[in-house]
Formats: sequence, structure tokens, C-alpha cells
Amino acid sequence: VLVQDDSPPLASLNLPAHAIRRRNAAALSAASAGKRLAEHFGVQSLAAFGLPDESHLIAAAGAVLEYVQFTQKTALPHITSLRFERDGGLLGMDAATRRNLEITETLTGAESPTLFSCIERTVSAMGARRLKHWLHHPLAERAVPAARHAAIAWCLDAGRPALGGVRAHLGSAVDVERITTRIALASARPRDLSGLAATLAALPALTALLGAALPTLLAELAAGLSPPSEVSALLAAAIADEPQASIKDGGVIRAGHSAELDELRALKANAGDFLVALEARERERTGIANLRVEYNKVHGFFIEVTQGQLAKVPADYQRRQTLKNAERFITPELKVFEDKALAAGERALALEKALYQALIESLSQFIAPLKRLADSLADLDAITALASAADEFKLVQPEFVDDERIAIEGGRHIVVEQQVENFIDNDVLLNRARQLLVVTGPNMGGKSTYMRQVAQIVLLAHAGSFVPARRAALGPIDQIFTRIGAADDLASGRSTFMVEMTEAAYILRHATAKSLVLIDEIGRGTSTFDGLALADAILRDLAMKVRAYTLFSTHYFELTEAASQIKQVANVHLSATEHKGGIVFLHKVESGAASKSYGLQVASLAGVPQEVVRAAKKRLAGLEAAADANAVPDLFAASEREAEPEIPHPALALIATIEPDQLSPRDALQLIYTLIDHVARPGGAGRE
Amino acid sequence: VLVQDDSPPLASLNLPAHAIRRRNAAALSAASAGKRLAEHFGVQSLAAFGLPDESHLIAAAGAVLEYVQFTQKTALPHITSLRFERDGGLLGMDAATRRNLEITETLTGAESPTLFSCIERTVSAMGARRLKHWLHHPLAERAVPAARHAAIAWCLDAGRPALGGVRAHLGSAVDVERITTRIALASARPRDLSGLAATLAALPALTALLGAALPTLLAELAAGLSPPSEVSALLAAAIADEPQASIKDGGVIRAGHSAELDELRALKANAGDFLVALEARERERTGIANLRVEYNKVHGFFIEVTQGQLAKVPADYQRRQTLKNAERFITPELKVFEDKALAAGERALALEKALYQALIESLSQFIAPLKRLADSLADLDAITALASAADEFKLVQPEFVDDERIAIEGGRHIVVEQQVENFIDNDVLLNRARQLLVVTGPNMGGKSTYMRQVAQIVLLAHAGSFVPARRAALGPIDQIFTRIGAADDLASGRSTFMVEMTEAAYILRHATAKSLVLIDEIGRGTSTFDGLALADAILRDLAMKVRAYTLFSTHYFELTEAASQIKQVANVHLSATEHKGGIVFLHKVESGAASKSYGLQVASLAGVPQEVVRAAKKRLAGLEAAADANAVPDLFAASEREAEPEIPHPALALIATIEPDQLSPRDALQLIYTLIDHVARPGGAGRE
Repeated sequence: VLVQDDSPPLASLNLPAHAIRRRNAAALSAASAGKRLAEHFGVQSLAAFGLPDESHLIAAAGAVLEYVQFTQKTALPHITSLRFERDGGLLGMDAATRRNLEITETLTGAESPTLFSCIERTVSAMGARRLKHWLHHPLAERAVPAARHAAIAWCLDAGRPALGGVRAHLGSAVDVERITTRIALASARPRDLSGLAATLAALPALTALLGAALPTLLAELAAGLSPPSEVSALLAAAIADEPQASIKDGGVIRAGHSAELDELRALKANAGDFLVALEARERERTGIANLRVEYNKVHGFFIEVTQGQLAKVPADYQRRQTLKNAERFITPELKVFEDKALAAGERALALEKALYQALIESLSQFIAPLKRLADSLADLDAITALASAADEFKLVQPEFVDDERIAIEGGRHIVVEQQVENFIDNDVLLNRARQLLVVTGPNMGGKSTYMRQVAQIVLLAHAGSFVPARRAALGPIDQIFTRIGAADDLASGRSTFMVEMTEAAYILRHATAKSLVLIDEIGRGTSTFDGLALADAILRDLAMKVRAYTLFSTHYFELTEAASQIKQVANVHLSATEHKGGIVFLHKVESGAASKSYGLQVASLAGVPQEVVRAAKKRLAGLEAAADANAVPDLFAASEREAEPEIPHPALALIATIEPDQLSPRDALQLIYTLIDHVARPGGAGRE
Repeated sequence: VLVQDDSPPLASLNLPAHAIRRRNAAALSAASAGKRLAEHFGVQSLAAFGLPDESHLIAAAGAVLEYVQFTQKTALPHITSLRFERDGGLLGMDAATRRNLEITETLTGAESPTLFSCIERTVSAMGARRLKHWLHHPLAERAVPAARHAAIAWCLDAGRPALGGVRAHLGSAVDVERITTRIALASARPRDLSGLAATLAALPALTALLGAALPTLLAELAAGLSPPSEVSALLAAAIADEPQASIKDGGVIRAGHSAELDELRALKANAGDFLVALEARERERTGIANLRVEYNKVHGFFIEVTQGQLAKVPADYQRRQTLKNAERFITPELKVFEDKALAAGERALALEKALYQALIESLSQFIAPLKRLADSLADLDAITALASAADEFKLVQPEFVDDERIAIEGGRHIVVEQQVENFIDNDVLLNRARQLLVVTGPNMGGKSTYMRQVAQIVLLAHAGSFVPARRAALGPIDQIFTRIGAADDLASGRSTFMVEMTEAAYILRHATAKSLVLIDEIGRGTSTFDGLALADAILRDLAMKVRAYTLFSTHYFELTEAASQIKQVANVHLSATEHKGGIVFLHKVESGAASKSYGLQVASLAGVPQEVVRAAKKRLAGLEAAADANAVPDLFAASEREAEPEIPHPALALIATIEPDQLSPRDALQLIYTLIDHVARPGGAGRE
């Protein structure tokens, strides 16, 4: 954030100090910003960029430019255009929603498994960055994502062979985007340029592979694959095929590009011949058969004579260095040659550097077409990667419809699907008559996965990707909101419950009838009645005032009553069944409310010691008996409670699964040890 | 994690792929590891390092060394010692606890505000790293932290003037630790060495400032401040005071260090005189008054003559370059001089490089004393920084006592204290007779802050720091556990509640009577009765079986009954009062249970729209009226009936008698059949 240097601290934004840079008023004023931008882009008026004539926008763009100029201290020719992205163009997601949907980072901060890590099939760094950008900037306006869908469909129609060739080409392309930036900043390295030359040379083949009769988006991208031929020509003429990594080391400029350079290099290259001739001559002259003429970097050129031959050394030899078994000499002739050869080397390096700088300067006139090329390559990679992912994960093209509904058949959560066996797909239907679903079901039954997969499908569709479902029809959607999980924020003085309520308040104030809202549990951070009353009031507000498409999961079974009272509210639940005394999650969404949460079974699965679970079970029986006896008529009666199933001892559960005829004696012994472990301390590690 | 290359996947560890490296069996075996370690450290036996003679420890250390050798491909002389840190020496904290205590990273992943960012007053990067390490590795064995406390106390006694001088010295020291590593890897840069030379030169003054009569720890550190004088001598002789950044640019080796280098440099330096003389001579010879002799890197030396004077150019001038208004020439004499000067420059650079490498090789014999110096500087910085923080934040020296208690008077949360006005301090007393505190109170009332400040004080004390309190007496403590907040973990298939329960299970299985346990809400991710029953069972297990020092906050007011049933459980609450229809949090801990949670007031503060809060209020009134009318007489009546002893299942009874080490695999298989029989027919009798 750039702040005027005399403005007060921005405590309310709660930003770390390093995110704030102070600049003076002149740098931030709208007037100077307009002038700076027009100057930078070489235009009379900024109207060219379709920028709305609002001074705060101009001031912001100008301030950013000023700051980058200030820090980079160079002309920034690679910044060639200014684009105004209206918030309205983007599908809104607040920071919490981005985090909860685990787009490029898991909730624990890891890079994988995330939506991106899962579907990422790009073959270049440019493409990977582009795909990341698309996932973080889904569009509410559907023309662009629809064009991407059409391009993906074309890729899949075209069949894999052609696609494979295109992707091989994209994969071998260098990072044109980064290299273009480096050319603009005059920091491009030799191998950047040789790589760019190779990539440019391969473009015609890539264009040919794409063929004609392309859908609009691909046709546009293909058109971007033809930068002016001067760029290739410049590079091909000047840069060696396999240059050294650093211009400091020479060997970068192609032979034939500069006569002067070729001459200086020849001088050095011919040194070998001269030395061989000199060695032969001096051996003959001195009669020292093992005399050697050599060179090393520190001591330069020398004639080496072994100890036993020193008597034969002529008078014009000057001692340069004494070794254990030999002496090294120099002669006036050799000294002159040394000076010439070393000087030629030094001048060749200086000349190469000058030629290289001139080349980069010439290239910097082509920043704009190179950027367009980079964009085309990045987009092509992202599109074909999405096509590849669509094929691999059996994704389908979503339909953007105009009526108000979110209708998904056979939807899946693409990340979770990769992690578990037998992922169960599920439908969702939200429309004006069925606008809020109260989702109940056991712990671990899949409520959170179900809810998030709906958001994920909406996000993917608006990012331009196919979606994990059998069919998905999506009406206009403007924003996604999520309220999931809970963590407090002590340093800013907010309790878990406060964080929950702040997020809920934000949703109630910002969501519209076109928003998708996920509420995954609410009201749990306060006393039971407080929480229930608030959850109920929030549910009703979402259903009747905000009227957003809403999935509302809860363990307050009392809330399932809303379905009988409000027409556009329906109950669904994740199913589970008991089997051999344990619990089996079916992960299937069915209509109606769930009857229980199976909390104790989950605690047992989590490894809570058996005696603690047994104590909890007794308590629960007492609580339920008391509740039944005093049946709170309106609320707690809503869900009839079945008896909790017996929780089997883990050793007994294990025994029940053994198929003894499949067992080797050694396995049997191992099993005995496991069983003893379970009995010694049910569940595992020992507490003394 | 290093894994043998043919071992099966480590799915159970749930690690990202990049955290796993596969090495072959030879690299990982204990035998080769022992040999590799002994060879590396040049010792006969590893006993020297006080390593317990356990092959898995040796194998692990050897495998790490092998891996680093493999990736670094160099001799690693900076790894000079091996230290075994017994887990028992450290105060245990699991990953969740580290995260929850926000030691160096906030829960949202930011670097600030954290415990570290708050108390960090170090003046060097070495000291900052050391302090971070201390905070992440508090010690359960109290001798070392107590020695740090004594050193801090001495610093504060000594008064700020002397301390200021010491810290100024430490602040101007270079990063000896990093530079030593770079010397060992032969990658030290010229300015590393000139900085090291300056730091070494200042050491006697630093030692003098510290003076004599130091407490043990400081005396040890002072002794580490005298590396062998050869190091200073080597550096002072060889390195220029202000060398160039890169050895490639020359200007690094001090004049006088090498006669050969001085000579080569002189040749270049004398070029100026020669050129002035030549220019005067040529002007006179040719009669061209404005003739100039010059040099540039690309074109070398030349004589420049303007267009108008070209007629006067003598025959021995050879054209080198044509400019717009002038021609540039070279003469045989100038060419010879050019060759000599440029060759001297090139050879000087090569010689400097060789001398520099020799210097680093000499320095690499002193890695061990340099590392000790780095350690001493780092420790000194960390200690004096803690002293400075103690002074700034009014911290006190904690007392380590031998009886079992945690007694804190006027404790504060040092991070939150910086963020809010009027932070209210609080006491805590935990001992055998008062071992578990049930903490209730309103949302936002300060429960979480109160609980975490206790853990923070324990952590700081065992890291060796003074603590934010008026007084703190701490008995022996072995581990800190926390269960705070909630987030699900979809990708690994764990619901929020599952995560909660897994954390609770971990605590119940690993905490001891010497552990500090913080439970900040539990049982909220499932249905109300499930959650209440589990929370109650967990509380009782902690109080009666685990017997850990426990702070247990909850919104289930029902749990406050435990205090009347279990002697070592007490209720405390954070106070609040209503004032003019709003809520005022007093943040003061008082004994007894709170009466309500003020959830609706908090929702209102959070910005939940007023009509929603009003609806919730109505609902709440209804709920409370219903509950009063049906007053559940004693929620826990059921639990009073103590469990009759259970008759163990016959299969379990059988398992309990097995002595597996006496068992043959065939017997084991037979036993499995018997066990299956028992389970199929409960009771074990042959009744069918």
C-alpha cells in the first residue's frame, strides 16, 4: 500500500509494516499521475485505455508507476498498456473464501493438495502462472470463460495426437514472459536470448499444428504467435547457438557477426600454432629435448626446463618462476606474444559486451509483440492443460444458462476425489423455489466436501475450465461466500465466536440473490441457546431477505424445522448406516433431515481412549433421558433419537474382520502382537 | 525424510512428496554411517560426542551427513561436531501447540505480531536466529534456562550504560556464523572477509566491556570471544580495507601482500604517466595541437585527430576507427604499450584470484574456533536482547521451584498487551489440590488470552527469558499441550470435529501429571448432547486420570458442575457487566462460574444486522422459557450412578494372558481361530 508520507498511520487496515510504503504528495496526486502515465505510454490522453475518467483511478495507477520507476530506476518499456478491471467483471471472493476453497494453498499453508496442484497439467512456467491467475480471478461475466470452454471442447474434439504435438511445442518454449521483462530491464542473459531464438524458430511449426478453422479464442491466440521477423533475424545473426551463461565469459556473440571480434578471437585461437612452432624452434636452438612452452592463467606464458637441463639454457632466457624440479623462463619474443594474446582476449571480451548491449537495445523495440507472444503461449498452455485435465479427470463442459439456478448432476470434489477410494458423486439443485439447503448428517459424513464441491464447480466454470460433474447448468452468479471452520485472532482481540459472527455479518451485508453462500456450521462458539438462536436467525435472513443460493450445514437438528416453515428451504442429509456395530458413511446426499451425529463413534475413531468414550456414552444416555422426560416441545423434539449403537472394543472389531484362512502363521503372530497392543491400551500409544 | 530406495511408500506419515528423498541401503546402514561419521570428524570412536551407543541414532546422523555430502559435493569442514539432544531435555510441544502459541508465525501465517516479533530486541542476524531457536526449543531440564536467567539478571544489574556498549559492538559485528560456513564451502566473498577482519579487531574491546566477575554462562561466552590470533593476522595481511564486492573485479588483495601483484598493478597505474608523455611527444612531432591519446575498453588505446588536422598525420599512424569528426589511430609504440598494459591487468586479476583462494584455504583450518566465536556472539546477543526486552516490558525473573505448582501473579500476554489499551493482568494458581480450572465467561471476555498467557509464560521461562508477570513460580513441567480453534482437513478426510477429537485423544494419551494442558472449547463440532457428553468425559479424565495442570474453557455451563463433584477442579470466570444496554468486558479472572455468554451482544458488535439479532433474541427468549418450564433437575443425575465393574469380553480376557514372545507362528494361528470363535459366539461357551 502506498501512503502519502504525512498521512496518519493506517492502523485500521491491520497491515504489516513492510506492506506500507510512504511517498510524497507529488507522487500521489491525480494531476501528476495523469501526466506521468501519458508520458510513459506516449499518449495524449488516457482515454485510449478505456479508463473511466475518475481521478482516484488515475492517481492510483500513476502512484504505482511512480513507485516502480523509483525502485527500478529504469524506463520500464515492458509496461505497455493499462487495463481497468471492473470488479463487476470478476466473480467476487473474499480472502476467507479463497482460503477455504484451497485454490493454490491448503488451509495449513501447503502447496498441495490444492485445486491448482490437482488439475495443473501445464507444460511451461508461463502456463502455470496463467492458470493460477485464472483460478484466482474467475469471471462473473461469462463471455470469456465460455470462450475458454469452447476452446477446450475444440481441443478435445481435435483428438489427442494433434494436442500432444502442440503441448510438446509449448513445453519446449522458454519463458518468453520473463525474458521479455529482462530485455526491457536490460538484464537478459545470453542463454535467455539463445532460448528465445530457438522458441521463435519453432513458432511456424506450432502455428501449423494448430491449423485453421479454430474457434475464436484459439484463432486470436494463434495470431499472437507471429512476432515481427526482425526479432528472429536479430537474434539469429548475433547470438551463438550455445552461448556461455554470462557475457563476462565471452563466447556469446556468433562468429561472423563482427569482423573486429572475429579478428581478436583469431589472435587468441592462433596462439596454439605459434606456441607449437616456438617450442620446436627453441628445442632445436637449445638442444633441450624436453623443453616445453606452456601457459597458465596466473603466470602467463613460459618456457619450462627441467633441473638437469638448466646448463643448456641460453642467455636471453629470463627466469620467471622456480619449481621443485624445473625452472620457468620467458624470452623477449614470448613476452611480446603474451602481451598481444592477453590484450586481444581482454579487448574481445569488452567488444562482446558492447555488441551484446547493442543487441538488447535493438530488441527492446519489440517489447509489445514479444509480450503478446508470451500471452499467447501462456494462454495456449493453460487452455490445452485444462483440456488435458478434462480428459484425465472426466470433466464436462458447464452450461451457462440465463434462468436462476445452480443444477449439478453427479458433482465431485476434484481434490478429495484424488485422495480417497470410491468417491461418491452427488447432485445439487438450487433455484428460486429451492434456494437454501439445510445440510445435516454425521460427523465425517462428507458435509463439508459436498458443500465445497459446489463452490469449486462454480469457481472452475467461471475460470474457464470444465467441471467435475456429469452435468452442470449455472445461472448468473456474482459472488461466492464461505463461512467455514473457526480460529480466533487474539492479537486483534477477536474470539473464535467473534470471527464467526464477523464473517456471518459480512455475508449478510454483501451477498445478493445471485451469490452462492456456504455456511459450514455457525453459532458453535457460544452457549448452546445463544448459538442456536443466532444460527436460526441467520438462516432465516439468508432464506428470506438475502435470498442467496445457500448451503447451510449444521449440527443443530432444531434448524431442520425451517424447511417446514419456509417454502424455499429444503433439508438434505449425508447418509450413514450402522454395520457390525461400527459406522459406515455412505457419502450420499439424500433429501430430508439426518437423525443423529454419531459424535461418540467419531471420537472413538479419532483415538479417544475407550474409557473416556464409555463415560461420555453414559452421560449422553442421561442427557437424553432427561431431555425426553422433559421434552422441550418445539425444538429438541424435532429429531427423534435412536439409541446410540454399542461401540465395540477395537480388538474385537479387529477380530471380526479377520479371514483366518487367508492368514500365514507369521501374519498371525503379528496380529497377536497388534491385539495385545489394543488390549494394553485400546487404540495405540501407551499412557502410563 | 530420508527413505531407503526400496522401502514402500510412507503414506501413513502424510508427508508431501518433496519432503521425502530416497537413498540406497548403503547410505542408510548403521555400519557405513558410523564409519562415515568417524571419518568426517576424524575420530576413532563417536563416543567423544557423548552419543548413546544406539545404532539407529548413528544411522540417522550418518544418513543426514551422507545426504548433505551428496547434495553439496564438498568436504563440509564447518560441520565440526555432533550433539545428541535428548527429547527429555526439551519441553515437549506438538505442532498444533507451536502453531497455537504463535511463537514465530501467527495462525494466519504472518510474521507479526508473534511472541518472537514482540520481544525480539536482538541487534544481529545471528542473535535473532539464536533467539528464535531458544523460543522453539524451550528446555524441560532447568539448568540451562536458569543460567540464562542469571545472565539476564546480571545484565540488568550491570545497568544500561555498559549493556549499551556491548550491544553496539554486537550490532556492528558481521554474521560470523554465515561467513564461517562460506569459508568452509570456499564461497566466502571479499567483503565477508574484510567484515570478519573488522569484527575480529573489535573483539578485545568487547571483552573489556564485559569485564570480569561474570556469571558462569557469560564467562563461558566471553571465553569464546578469543579465536587464535592467526586468523586476524591472516586477514589483516591479505585483505584490503574496502575490497571490491567480487574477486572477479580485483582490488581485493592488500597492497604489499604479494610483490608480483604489486608489480603488475604498478604497470597499469603507470599507464597514465606514459600516455601524458606520449601525447606531448606526438603533439610536438606532428604539430597537431589538439591531438589526444586516450583509452576505452572496447577499442583499446588510440590517438585521436580531428577532421581538420588529418593532413598532418604521419605515415606510421595506422587507422583504427573513424568517427564523425575525427579519426582514431594507433602507432606501433602505442600498440606494444597497449598489449603490455592489458596483459598486466589480466594477469593481476588471475593472480589475485589465486591468492584469494589460498587465503580461504588457510582460514579453513580455523573453522572450529570461528564457529565457537559465532556461537558466543549469537548467545551474547540473544541474552542481552532478552535483558533489553525484560527492561522494556517489565518482565521478571521466574522462579523454578521443586514442588508441584504453577503460580503466577499478575501474568500478562505479551503480544496482546502490545495491541490493546489497558491490558488487565491476572493470576493463576495450579497445584495438586487445584489442578483443573474450568474457565467460563462471555465471548470476547478474554478466556483465550488468559489461557494462552499461562502457556506463554511457561514457554518463556523454559526458553531462558524473563516473563510478563509480577511473580512466577514454576514447578517441574514436561510438556505443553493445546487444543484450540478448529479447521477441517478435507484432503485427508478429517472433519472439524474429527480434528478436535484427534487432538483431544493425543492429549489424553500423552499428557502426564507434569504437563500443562490448555483446552479452549471442545465438543462443538457435533450435536449438542454428543458434544457435551464428550467434553464432560474428557474433562473428568484430565482431572482424575491424567492429572495434568489444566485450563479448560467452555461455553457448556453444565460443565461447571464438575467443581462441586471433583475436589481438584475449580471454576473461574472472566467477568463482564452490562452497562447502558451494551456489554463491558472487565477481563478480570474471578473465582466461580459465569452465568451467561452474551453471544447476541457479540454478534451485534460483529456487525450482524440488527433485525437478525432481534430475531435471535426472540428465539432465545422462547428457548429459555421452555427450558425453565421443563427445568432439567440435574443434568448429570445419570452420571451419579457409578458404573458397575464391567465383565471383560472373554476374547479380551484371553488376549490379556498371552505371552507373545513364547508363541510359535503356528500357535499364533491356532490362537487366532480361538479368538474368532469367541467373538462369533460371545461367552465362549459351546452353546450353539
